[in-house]
Amino acid sequence: MASTVGRAIQCRAAVLHSAGSEFELETINVEPPKSGEIRMQVLYSSLCHTDITIADWGTLKYPVILGHEGSGVVESVGEGVTEFAPGDHVICVYQGECGKCKLCKLSTTNHCEVSFGNLFTPFMPLDGTARFSSLDGSAIHHFVNTSTFTEYTVLDKTSVVKVDPVPLEKACLLGCGVPTGLGSALNLANVEAGSTVAVIGLGTVGLAAVEGARIAGATRIIGIDILPRKFEAARAFGATECLNPQDHEAPLHEVLLELTNGGVDYCFECVGKPNLLVQALLSTTGYGTTVMVGAPRPDEMVTFPPVILLSGRQLKSGYFGGFRGKSDMRKLVDMCSTKEINLDGYITHRLPFSEVNEGVKLLSSGSCIKCVFSMDG
Amino acid sequence: MASTVGRAIQCRAAVLHSAGSEFELETINVEPPKSGEIRMQVLYSSLCHTDITIADWGTLKYPVILGHEGSGVVESVGEGVTEFAPGDHVICVYQGECGKCKLCKLSTTNHCEVSFGNLFTPFMPLDGTARFSSLDGSAIHHFVNTSTFTEYTVLDKTSVVKVDPVPLEKACLLGCGVPTGLGSALNLANVEAGSTVAVIGLGTVGLAAVEGARIAGATRIIGIDILPRKFEAARAFGATECLNPQDHEAPLHEVLLELTNGGVDYCFECVGKPNLLVQALLSTTGYGTTVMVGAPRPDEMVTFPPVILLSGRQLKSGYFGGFRGKSDMRKLVDMCSTKEINLDGYITHRLPFSEVNEGVKLLSSGSCIKCVFSMDG
Repeated sequence: MASTVGRAIQCRAAVLHSAGSEFELETINVEPPKSGEIRMQVLYSSLCHTDITIADWGTLKYPVILGHEGSGVVESVGEGVTEFAPGDHVICVYQGECGKCKLCKLSTTNHCEVSFGNLFTPFMPLDGTARFSSLDGSAIHHFVNTSTFTEYTVLDKTSVVKVDPVPLEKACLLGCGVPTGLGSALNLANVEAGSTVAVIGLGTVGLAAVEGARIAGATRIIGIDILPRKFEAARAFGATECLNPQDHEAPLHEVLLELTNGGVDYCFECVGKPNLLVQALLSTTGYGTTVMVGAPRPDEMVTFPPVILLSGRQLKSGYFGGFRGKSDMRKLVDMCSTKEINLDGYITHRLPFSEVNEGVKLLSSGSCIKCVFSMDG
Repeated sequence: MASTVGRAIQCRAAVLHSAGSEFELETINVEPPKSGEIRMQVLYSSLCHTDITIADWGTLKYPVILGHEGSGVVESVGEGVTEFAPGDHVICVYQGECGKCKLCKLSTTNHCEVSFGNLFTPFMPLDGTARFSSLDGSAIHHFVNTSTFTEYTVLDKTSVVKVDPVPLEKACLLGCGVPTGLGSALNLANVEAGSTVAVIGLGTVGLAAVEGARIAGATRIIGIDILPRKFEAARAFGATECLNPQDHEAPLHEVLLELTNGGVDYCFECVGKPNLLVQALLSTTGYGTTVMVGAPRPDEMVTFPPVILLSGRQLKSGYFGGFRGKSDMRKLVDMCSTKEINLDGYITHRLPFSEVNEGVKLLSSGSCIKCVFSMDG
């Protein structure tokens, strides 16, 4: 591996050239890491629904390399990087943590000025330039400080975290969806033991919210989806019952109010639809907590009577389930090691990287929970 | 006083006969307390904006005796009441606490099944009948388990709490507005020391939110009102600066974002207007907390893009500032005794009870913060 240090690497990447198009597998140049940066050989990259939805919003700069759940080994480090050495097993985290900025020192957020402050910058966060280029020399844009749909990527050190002993072929899942769902239950809602929980939408994030609620000791966990084929996984993660809203004529909140004799204590909206967010708010007790876990489109609005909050309802959200990208990762790694978190349960498909577009189709159709790409395939 | 025990008392009350009308001062009958109840001689009663706004909603049963901030002495107690004795200095709390029900045992709410569960019952919460009647014998309805605009009232024991050594002529303020504002900062938002706070609407509740933020150690507290005459009081309670939205062409949230270089950490909407709630949400940092303290009308809607929550904004509300009506009162009484809470600062008018309609006019016009009626006047 030493032969690549300090030099650009040519490798294969899945490049998106425009909103709505398929990924193009092509050879690109990946520059060596600059000061404070790490070049990572991506060995596994998993697909998150956000990769698909944000591509659809049309707010990205093209061409771009998406992907933000990736695991692999450090290939080389830039000047001044002492926390990592070549060969370290790492994942990247879009919710990075420098540990030094004003935000990293606040107890009220898990944001970081370096990482979150530059989340939608299409280049490296501090340097403001690309490390990816086409063979003709033109820049290819980065995505949320990560860009894992490539055999090599360059990351600011704030976006890299060690994950030993979690095996790399599943550690990529700790980069987004699983912590987002788990943390929504454990950090944002702070689910109490003995409580009643509803989770709307049983993709990776929703299943992880179910798992978080189970870990927190919720007594009753109602998994909700319009695709009943997701119920088996939901039960495996801890759902005590499952519900398909299409089996009922009444609106979802009325079904939940009746089923629970007055409302759930916590409701997680994991689809990202404003109408479901209103259903979630209406389905809790008067003092219940609703967490918006799914990402609504920026141009969508939510409308509800605010008087429903007056009795003590609360509405929360947050990136990465409120976990700090690096300093909370040890906790997550430990929970994986003790099998408290069942990473294997999320992975329904393993595909070679060459079939990245097939993975997108599987996820879009609801046939897949989590698809992990082997980057060497 | 012994001569009245066990007998109906004839006394003066301010009775509201229909929505929008003035109070009529008339002589009524007040029955003795039944099992678990207390008859209280109301010595002071203060006026809360909710008395006026709820009367306007037209959802009450008439005739009714309003008022829910009252202090006085226990005149007699019903069967089985051992916690109180005649002569005790007490206030009534609409947010009562039985201490035994399922809700009283939950850490996630300050509601009580007896008290909150019967808040809008127009009679006694457990017995379901009135203790007030006209001289012709027809029932007069109760209001939020309290009804303090009368020289004598009957309360369930869950709605009564001792307040020694706070003097009765101001202890009535601990029945609603002051704890609601204080607790919005101290309990619901849990304001952190060193933070930046905005308070929209500087009536009693808003001023108490300012005071709560000061007690919590907020560094910057921005008081906001369209009536600049309220700014002096706001500064006395702890506002470090004041702002009149009408002095600016830009929307309030833009003014606040610029003034704070990116948003306030906590925003309290103390007016009860959905459009101001949206301004509040937009005026916080991406991870800021908005507390809806004012009560919107039940038929009003709020509309905003839910994507603004995604970075970690949260929206909360709650009755009585999240304080438990009885078990948290000792804390509030102690804070009054040490002058940490400045009860005197809220009282701008003292009127004899015979001028109750004058008090309503003063409060409605914004000329008054808190008006306390001496019930013997």
